[in-house]
Amino acid sequence: MPTFKLTISYEGTAYHGWQVQPDRPTVQGEVERALAQILQSPTQAIGSSRTDAGVHALGQLVSVVTPVDIPPERLMGGLNALLPDDIGVVACARAADGFHAIADTVSKRYRYLLYDGPGRPILSRAWCWAVPTRLDTLAMHTAAASLVGRHDFASFESRGTVRQTSVRTVLACEVRRCRPVAEGRHWQRPDTPSDEDGDFVVVEVEADGFLYNMVRTIVGTLVEVGRGRRPIAWPGEVLVARDRRLAGMTAPAAGLCLLWVQST
Amino acid sequence: MPTFKLTISYEGTAYHGWQVQPDRPTVQGEVERALAQILQSPTQAIGSSRTDAGVHALGQLVSVVTPVDIPPERLMGGLNALLPDDIGVVACARAADGFHAIADTVSKRYRYLLYDGPGRPILSRAWCWAVPTRLDTLAMHTAAASLVGRHDFASFESRGTVRQTSVRTVLACEVRRCRPVAEGRHWQRPDTPSDEDGDFVVVEVEADGFLYNMVRTIVGTLVEVGRGRRPIAWPGEVLVARDRRLAGMTAPAAGLCLLWVQST
Repeated sequence: MPTFKLTISYEGTAYHGWQVQPDRPTVQGEVERALAQILQSPTQAIGSSRTDAGVHALGQLVSVVTPVDIPPERLMGGLNALLPDDIGVVACARAADGFHAIADTVSKRYRYLLYDGPGRPILSRAWCWAVPTRLDTLAMHTAAASLVGRHDFASFESRGTVRQTSVRTVLACEVRRCRPVAEGRHWQRPDTPSDEDGDFVVVEVEADGFLYNMVRTIVGTLVEVGRGRRPIAWPGEVLVARDRRLAGMTAPAAGLCLLWVQST
Repeated sequence: MPTFKLTISYEGTAYHGWQVQPDRPTVQGEVERALAQILQSPTQAIGSSRTDAGVHALGQLVSVVTPVDIPPERLMGGLNALLPDDIGVVACARAADGFHAIADTVSKRYRYLLYDGPGRPILSRAWCWAVPTRLDTLAMHTAAASLVGRHDFASFESRGTVRQTSVRTVLACEVRRCRPVAEGRHWQRPDTPSDEDGDFVVVEVEADGFLYNMVRTIVGTLVEVGRGRRPIAWPGEVLVARDRRLAGMTAPAAGLCLLWVQST
């Protein structure tokens, strides 16, 4: 049967996460409603990541199997016409028979956005976590390196799901300061004192798979280092201990965004 | 009397512009309500730019005169605690006696954000104009240069206000493609084919003053060039003709953002 591979962006603020839930708005629910209207039959949209309530995505990977042989451009155009303005399809292509967004996922990358500038962030308020202290991003970046590699990430897993193993391979864990195009101290003329490359901090984590709340717990832990409350070596010690109680807080959902999913 | 110079950011989506209007939410109205609560007396907030409904600001310059001698940090903190989350104070300082946000403005810079990528922009949807055709930004940038300098901008002024003169000095008019940190094809792994530096286009215009709808009309005119409908020389010809009917459409308000105001 015709199989499609879709890349979907959404702002998660208004939704109770990706996965369909009875009587609550979800991203999957919106996508499946639009698919049913276009394809004239109930159609499942399988998402690679079951993003939580309030979490965003630029590139959620979605597989759709349907008996209808519709050109991918028309499927994408139809979905974008029907979907609400906080969900959009950015790519759509035919996939090989049997393609499955969860089973065929090889790796994913998440971004977590923090704000540590003056006042509050305005335009980005729905997709960042504003912290009251200026963060030491070099310390955070150095600490983050100790999480890269194949490890048991039990210290960074929230309860609530049963998994066979908490071993995952983190391919990248990077922290950098940034100045978004749409926001930041663009209100300062370029000749005024530098804002040291921006008031936003990006944490990006790439892995072959993620445990429940793993990125948010890693961020909550790295922020302790960035605030100077914990030494650079601490996140690596938390990792080795395999005890969730030792890690930092779970960072708020709004700062998290699924950047992309790589599939076979 | 104590005079304060505030820099205010806002997302204009929910407001009928800066200026107070009866029975309609405005940014000035919100700021003055918060000021009255903090200073315990009706207080005027004078904004350098009377931004229109739906227009945003990263750095609106505001002057406030009050008999109350409050430390600037406390005024900023109090305002940020009281203001809604789409308005925020990013800087607050004591100013010289007699400082006035309109009279003392020397120059301003506006940014207009366009999206010309696949599908629709999701996170930036409230502050950009999505156009259906890929824009030739080099042609737009070249055409924009003909607007720089001291000219009569009558061709780029909407009716509705009476001004003594429509001569203004444009200090910069620049077009460039960009890839915002928070959005763009981050859903493509870096090793996939390039998106040619992003799906967003920034137009920035700096001048000693602006006519009504001047930036939005300049953008509507430059977009005609970017779409290939008009030659690069056309915006310069429109300028010389001093006839609003010859220019392009007035671009939608949502794409416009006041970046900064320079004062004496």
